[in-house]
Amino acid sequence: MNLVIDIGNTFAKTAVMDGSEIVFKNVEQELSCPAIRDLLHEYPAIDRAILSTTRNPNERTEEYIRRHVSHFLRFVPGTPVPLANLYATPETLGADRLAAAVGAWDVAPGRELLIIDLGSAITIDRVSAAGEYLGGNISPGMAMRFEALHRLTDRLPLCSTPERYDLTGTSTRNAIESGVVLGIIHEIEGYIDRIGEKNGALTVFFAGRDANFFADKVKKPIFVIYDLVIKGLNRILEYNAQPNTQDIEP
Amino acid sequence: MNLVIDIGNTFAKTAVMDGSEIVFKNVEQELSCPAIRDLLHEYPAIDRAILSTTRNPNERTEEYIRRHVSHFLRFVPGTPVPLANLYATPETLGADRLAAAVGAWDVAPGRELLIIDLGSAITIDRVSAAGEYLGGNISPGMAMRFEALHRLTDRLPLCSTPERYDLTGTSTRNAIESGVVLGIIHEIEGYIDRIGEKNGALTVFFAGRDANFFADKVKKPIFVIYDLVIKGLNRILEYNAQPNTQDIEP
Repeated sequence: MNLVIDIGNTFAKTAVMDGSEIVFKNVEQELSCPAIRDLLHEYPAIDRAILSTTRNPNERTEEYIRRHVSHFLRFVPGTPVPLANLYATPETLGADRLAAAVGAWDVAPGRELLIIDLGSAITIDRVSAAGEYLGGNISPGMAMRFEALHRLTDRLPLCSTPERYDLTGTSTRNAIESGVVLGIIHEIEGYIDRIGEKNGALTVFFAGRDANFFADKVKKPIFVIYDLVIKGLNRILEYNAQPNTQDIEP
Repeated sequence: MNLVIDIGNTFAKTAVMDGSEIVFKNVEQELSCPAIRDLLHEYPAIDRAILSTTRNPNERTEEYIRRHVSHFLRFVPGTPVPLANLYATPETLGADRLAAAVGAWDVAPGRELLIIDLGSAITIDRVSAAGEYLGGNISPGMAMRFEALHRLTDRLPLCSTPERYDLTGTSTRNAIESGVVLGIIHEIEGYIDRIGEKNGALTVFFAGRDANFFADKVKKPIFVIYDLVIKGLNRILEYNAQPNTQDIEP
């Protein structure tokens, strides 16, 4: 069994994986040593662990995990992954973006992929059918757009995820809510159209907090895999635990 | 001749109009009484004035202008305009949005209009071919998106209007710059497609600071009228100076 830990800006996610299946998941603000200890006690079959973090690591917790598994991997720029990384500045590439790409490739290998992670920011990343991570774009997420319109202007109210949206708003609140939601829908549909035009069939994955909200609003076929980053990290752990499979060619 | 003053959040614009033509224009941070005095002296033919402001008015300057023209109009919610206003909450409608709609209608009366003002915020407003202001949406502008990605996250750099953008960024900076620019392009194209689908031929106007930047990037026919708000305010002044033309029906 594998222990997968993904520490982002806001949350620390911990998952126990049996093969490619999540058998336990926990989301908290900080990674806590007692929680890890309880988990390792409850799932004694855990023998490998991977940790990815965008914050400063908690060294005591990391050391504790290291001592209790036979194989520990800290995911950093340069960690081998089952994709060729064509990003020009891999050292600055968000670990979550690359992990999500690996997760998507694991679900749909050999296809042209577009991975849209709808969190604080929206990241739009591409993997070619040849297994190359091509890079992608970054744009403000839904909550960030509402916050920006309120905080960076003098007079607009703070809005939040609406129950409905309209092509043409008829009050300030409705105009903002519809404007932000439709803007993101158009943005996503535009990428699917433009990349599809150039590359033919495209498999599109949605991940992240707002994935379900937008999944039924975008007029395109997409797959929602909420825990794409966790699944990708698990795949990266497996990949590095089996040194004979370092090449992506069969 | 008309004096048109448009005081927004960031700038105070002053224009002298001869018919529908701008013969003088000035943009400054604050409306200053000496500047107005000089202008009235330099253009003694100015006999009417309109003032629109989103900030608290400068009463002394306003009083000064009032005394020096035969007709003074403060543009407020409720001021008659040559469009039927179907906004549900007209008292909260930004004066600049309604003025831009009037300006567009003056240039292309009798057409289905879409007015996209690309400033601090992006406003997307509609006028029907019957001369009804239908409302519209609000979304963060380009600079606001760059600022939000930097200020509302821990680790992303502050980017600004790029020289080029790509479908797929390959560095953090390029990913943000391309993501923001392409997001806005897709957003605008999405509105033109969706509204065009429902309403047939659509005349699209771009206004505001970033109008020229996006005009040649959007794959749709559009017209750029940088001073659409000024032109609309001038039209509103004319409209109210001629009480016999209050109805939009011929």
